[in-house]
Amino acid sequence: MTKRALISVSNKEGILEFAKELAALDYEILSTGGTKKMLQDNNVPVTAVDEVTKFPEILDGRVKTLNPMIHGGLLGKFDDPSHQAQMNEHGIEPIEIVCVNLYPFVETISKPNVTWDDAIENIDIGGPTMLRSAAKNHQYVTVIVDSNDYCQVLEELKAQGSTTIETRRRLAAKVFRHTAAYDSYISNYLTEEEFPENLTMTYELKQTLRYGENPHQKAAFYQKRLGSDFSLAFATQLHGKELSYNNIQDGNAALQIVKEFDMPAAVAVKHMNPCGVGTGAGIEEAFDKAYEADPTSIFGGIIALNREVDLATAKKLSDIFLEIIIAPSFTEEALEILTKKKNIRLMTINFSQEKQDQFKMVSVEGGLLVQEDDKFGFADADIKVATDREPTEEEWKALKLGWAVVKHVKSNAIVVTDTQMTLGVGAGQMNRVGAAKIALEQAGEKAKGAVLASDAFFPMSDTVETAAAAGITAIIQPGGSIKDQDSIDKANEYGIAMVFTGVRHFKH
Amino acid sequence: MTKRALISVSNKEGILEFAKELAALDYEILSTGGTKKMLQDNNVPVTAVDEVTKFPEILDGRVKTLNPMIHGGLLGKFDDPSHQAQMNEHGIEPIEIVCVNLYPFVETISKPNVTWDDAIENIDIGGPTMLRSAAKNHQYVTVIVDSNDYCQVLEELKAQGSTTIETRRRLAAKVFRHTAAYDSYISNYLTEEEFPENLTMTYELKQTLRYGENPHQKAAFYQKRLGSDFSLAFATQLHGKELSYNNIQDGNAALQIVKEFDMPAAVAVKHMNPCGVGTGAGIEEAFDKAYEADPTSIFGGIIALNREVDLATAKKLSDIFLEIIIAPSFTEEALEILTKKKNIRLMTINFSQEKQDQFKMVSVEGGLLVQEDDKFGFADADIKVATDREPTEEEWKALKLGWAVVKHVKSNAIVVTDTQMTLGVGAGQMNRVGAAKIALEQAGEKAKGAVLASDAFFPMSDTVETAAAAGITAIIQPGGSIKDQDSIDKANEYGIAMVFTGVRHFKH
Repeated sequence: MTKRALISVSNKEGILEFAKELAALDYEILSTGGTKKMLQDNNVPVTAVDEVTKFPEILDGRVKTLNPMIHGGLLGKFDDPSHQAQMNEHGIEPIEIVCVNLYPFVETISKPNVTWDDAIENIDIGGPTMLRSAAKNHQYVTVIVDSNDYCQVLEELKAQGSTTIETRRRLAAKVFRHTAAYDSYISNYLTEEEFPENLTMTYELKQTLRYGENPHQKAAFYQKRLGSDFSLAFATQLHGKELSYNNIQDGNAALQIVKEFDMPAAVAVKHMNPCGVGTGAGIEEAFDKAYEADPTSIFGGIIALNREVDLATAKKLSDIFLEIIIAPSFTEEALEILTKKKNIRLMTINFSQEKQDQFKMVSVEGGLLVQEDDKFGFADADIKVATDREPTEEEWKALKLGWAVVKHVKSNAIVVTDTQMTLGVGAGQMNRVGAAKIALEQAGEKAKGAVLASDAFFPMSDTVETAAAAGITAIIQPGGSIKDQDSIDKANEYGIAMVFTGVRHFKH
Repeated sequence: MTKRALISVSNKEGILEFAKELAALDYEILSTGGTKKMLQDNNVPVTAVDEVTKFPEILDGRVKTLNPMIHGGLLGKFDDPSHQAQMNEHGIEPIEIVCVNLYPFVETISKPNVTWDDAIENIDIGGPTMLRSAAKNHQYVTVIVDSNDYCQVLEELKAQGSTTIETRRRLAAKVFRHTAAYDSYISNYLTEEEFPENLTMTYELKQTLRYGENPHQKAAFYQKRLGSDFSLAFATQLHGKELSYNNIQDGNAALQIVKEFDMPAAVAVKHMNPCGVGTGAGIEEAFDKAYEADPTSIFGGIIALNREVDLATAKKLSDIFLEIIIAPSFTEEALEILTKKKNIRLMTINFSQEKQDQFKMVSVEGGLLVQEDDKFGFADADIKVATDREPTEEEWKALKLGWAVVKHVKSNAIVVTDTQMTLGVGAGQMNRVGAAKIALEQAGEKAKGAVLASDAFFPMSDTVETAAAAGITAIIQPGGSIKDQDSIDKANEYGIAMVFTGVRHFKH
């Protein structure tokens, strides 16, 4: 009996060659619609599906293959006598190979002016059903959803007349990954609830990584199909080794911070915390300030800059050991200098795009925490001056800078800044005054006349006291402690201007 | 013309009442298999699906509803004259309501001795296809996959003779969430690759949270369907308000640390870092030590203990302000004391279960990082004494404790310990010697004769110098720096015993 292959593809890449090879191997090709026409136009003999089903295609193609003559052929166990008898009784012949890919739902909803009806019409029903039937019955049936697998299937057919069970099982698993992803996109498109009872998310492998946070941990980087270009997942690497897991974490952190600034800015990151943030009239000055902020910690760090890297800046960047430089672009001269360094990674990213992820996720044992991204900025805050003295214009400038940065420092976080740069960063501390001490100690003499930003309120007045002793003249913090008045009194006592934002920025 | 409802459910909860109500509303019920029998046994009039299809159920039930007479009825647009004409021509009548749930694939693979064939047989083909057809055509068709929705559908039918488009759209979205999750479970079961080209994960909503890390961020906690009981997602709350987002993060961190210890241990966590870890002969002593480690930072913290909380320990716990206490159990007397505190949360968790999550995930803008959980322990490490002097027995004990803890402290991390407890924790620093200074400063006089653990190697000998100055007598660290010899020389100079583990424990 002739073996049969059912081919019905939306993406026709490679299908003609595949079908020709199958025909040459004496497979009868069953097909329908556009695939059938394309094969026939190219002189591949094709049997129409409706000849098999004895039922016409109806409802504008909505019902073509949903038929026992097809699914009996896909789901029958070839070596089960009872199945065989039933199939014979109803004239159902087995289908050995299924090659199907689906209506382009994601491509459709990605179009700028997609209509609801267009989206709905691109939900494939027949295709996933054939794929799932064949994948369930992979003990007997070879199912192909990915054109990359045509070659291996043909090789096995040529070599031994059939595919191996290992191949069929691998292809079946791929089918269920595909249908799971497909329905995940559909469900996300249709779902209006922010936190539905079932959350199914799908990602595409961008790259497996050499390892994770540590060499003994395997890791991979997945990207969103419909993500923003303002993302390392969609960045262009111009030079250097592959990004590591920690590079991606750090680079992502640096990007989030530098995105806070409209003016030229440079951010150096180590262990997901900024060690130096600088701003300036131009990108060179911004980098100078980011470097000056902490010339020690920047060693081996990651730099994100929000302007094209020019020659002057590149010269300075090339003088220090950096893991990655991320920028919207590099001038040719800048690239020439920087690419001389074998180990540095140079990335460009589309800064004109906005961040797009609405929710961020993190695993906890046995579950997943999902939360809105913290997109709250200075302009959104309900700013109140809590002290007798208002900040001066200079202090306001510094306070805004400090507030933009402290939001991205791991809690408890205290940042000391002047009008252009960070002077001290106190990160990840278990108590607040401890974070203040670290930041102030780092700022040293520069703390005199500088300002201090805190990601959460002061539970007691001790942080104000410590800040005053170091010479801080203005403070920005959320406010909201039951002991706010103690802190206000203390600030007034020292002539410090203190501003409440009403908004906390914990980050862990 | 009579309206028709197709009912085919694996989970029969509530279905009899629903079917009776539909029948009372003059719906013709189509059904098959076990559902049909159950309804007929209860005197609900049922039309068999094979009367509609004019085709018998074949292949042990693998092909029942995969038929144009059914799917034409589900997919035809009720108000499209061309569709109507085609349906009339083929004798296809519309199906207004579809109530289907699926073969219990997850329940099947959760069984301890499930066979491959059993799993495969429980991949539903017909059910998802009916659900997806009806959901695609939700403009006209009402589709129900969740018995919780029977009630609302009946109410709308009774009130206005049909469901609203809003309801049908909501139900359609739920169907695609359901089929996405269903195929995600199947694909995870079948997939052998660790990092496949498509990663689709599914979670079930445990609870929406009041907010995320900060009050302006919405958040929710999702749980794995097949997660370990050693997880906050499956913990039992005995007392107190709902867990917050930060509670879950901190509680999870505390559990990971306390799970390192076989002997009685208590861990206090603030901002995802341990502020105090104590061990002892009994749980009371362990708590004493965890408290003593940092009596300031523990305020408002989270405590995990790996033994039943007894009266003596409960008394001490109730003397301080804590957000959560997590333990395997509480004695009755302990509970009596602790439940007097309105704001404390008391949780029990199954400590006898092992951690189960193989991979952990975290979002970055536009993508997802996936890595193996860091399960590497002291026993797995390739321990080498690098210095002239070997650690004493006491020092070994302290080094093991330090190594178990530093793995869970945010990098750069340095922990100072004695044989029973942490004395200083330096967390989240951008340079290593900075982390050491914080830990040693906190330890103060107690650093004399204590040991120091570092999560990564020393890039220079300055940390050894700083440690020696504080009185540290032994050090544990991964080793692997090109300047290891400098650190070894320095340690030998001060008579410090230094141990290399060969394994880094970055955590961010």
